[in-house]
Amino acid sequence: MAEEKKNEPVILITNDDSIAAPGIKALAEAVKDLGRVVVVAPDKPQSGMGHAITIGHPLRLQKSFLIEGVEAYTCSGTPVDCVKLAVDKILHRKPDICLSGINHGANHSINVIYSGTMSAAMEAAIESIPSAGFSILDYSMEADFSAAKVYVRKIAEAMLAKSFDKHLLLNVNFPAVPLELLKGIKVCRQAYAKYEEKFLERKDPHDKTYYWLTGEFINFDEGEDTDVWALANNYVSVVPVQFDLTNYKLKQELETSWNL
Amino acid sequence: MAEEKKNEPVILITNDDSIAAPGIKALAEAVKDLGRVVVVAPDKPQSGMGHAITIGHPLRLQKSFLIEGVEAYTCSGTPVDCVKLAVDKILHRKPDICLSGINHGANHSINVIYSGTMSAAMEAAIESIPSAGFSILDYSMEADFSAAKVYVRKIAEAMLAKSFDKHLLLNVNFPAVPLELLKGIKVCRQAYAKYEEKFLERKDPHDKTYYWLTGEFINFDEGEDTDVWALANNYVSVVPVQFDLTNYKLKQELETSWNL
Repeated sequence: MAEEKKNEPVILITNDDSIAAPGIKALAEAVKDLGRVVVVAPDKPQSGMGHAITIGHPLRLQKSFLIEGVEAYTCSGTPVDCVKLAVDKILHRKPDICLSGINHGANHSINVIYSGTMSAAMEAAIESIPSAGFSILDYSMEADFSAAKVYVRKIAEAMLAKSFDKHLLLNVNFPAVPLELLKGIKVCRQAYAKYEEKFLERKDPHDKTYYWLTGEFINFDEGEDTDVWALANNYVSVVPVQFDLTNYKLKQELETSWNL
Repeated sequence: MAEEKKNEPVILITNDDSIAAPGIKALAEAVKDLGRVVVVAPDKPQSGMGHAITIGHPLRLQKSFLIEGVEAYTCSGTPVDCVKLAVDKILHRKPDICLSGINHGANHSINVIYSGTMSAAMEAAIESIPSAGFSILDYSMEADFSAAKVYVRKIAEAMLAKSFDKHLLLNVNFPAVPLELLKGIKVCRQAYAKYEEKFLERKDPHDKTYYWLTGEFINFDEGEDTDVWALANNYVSVVPVQFDLTNYKLKQELETSWNL
């Protein structure tokens, strides 16, 4: 394993689409000369895994390859497992920053809750590693990451240059447009938007019913300060995310009005 | 399927320990006469699944049995899948409240992020169903739920009686002590406490390394307004939880200080 040069920052990269996804290659290419870059990614797609961890069976780590000049490993577990294993068994220290993605598909609004990409970044932030998750509004494997890469690099440079809160956690989404149409970065709040689920019902050859999850995304939030608005208007959306889920307003209400 | 009586509230129950866990039986027993109670629980344990959803393969629902007077189904997916399927395919409407648990093991502090129990409740809250997740600080299958049941009932009655915000989401934890030692309910904030992971390294018979996730829970937060403090002092902790993860303080900071 190549050791880092003195003072060279260590950048941990992971994702949820697996090591084989073009998005993680784009992410590594964007930052490979900013420090010692180490990739620890799932060995198979883990979309929709949320903040799942593997506790009931053991995990494997495997030396792998992504791009020249970057160390790469695959892990048999979830995106969150990747971060935990990378710190304890590969880096033997906390990296300076952790970058997750670039996810094939949007993680704006409520998607932050379901997203393996964002959960990996959140896990790092919980462990006091400033982190960012990146996603592009294009599910295809042929998504064009060239504009996203320019902004990934800007954001990574800013994260390395400035002394942010050690729990810094950014949810960054890119509209699927070329660089010349991008209007820049907009710091946003998470929109209240969600999926209205409809399960597709089918019969198997034994006449037993099974269901496929499908759904329609509906935005209930017209605010121009939201990530959904920013993306619809060709901005790169950046939502600072927290992992203290306490609803302080409701806490106060319950304390004063709830006699139990 | 038994139809609800007019004006009878519908209570959806789920968990992450599966239909076979004593905790979900205790939960159903505590509230079975408060309305039409419908259980939709995973058919196998799903601890640590976070907010995972099943998108890559289909789901099965199966009629099951839990206790007399309560409809019960198992689902082949995650706790979040259970809630989605229950609303769309079993109830064909939103239940009045959703209760998740009682989890065998604590879900205080940072555990809210990893918990399938809390993710099921959060999914319901996102869908505008007032919800609560319940957990007891006892991992054993022989945990004594008698004190917890008294408070589950109180909380469920309060949720049904009062018109709360439709996104109400409570994270309720019980210390593992008998009723006479419980000091009552304390509304709290989520403590900053987390696991310091250490992976246990082993060799398989082919001399290949594998890892087991282990870790030590460390509390970094001495506040007497936290759930960890409340539980250590024999209170039932109630943390109101939100799913807007925007860090508004950091948002303001980035807007004023971050030139990108």
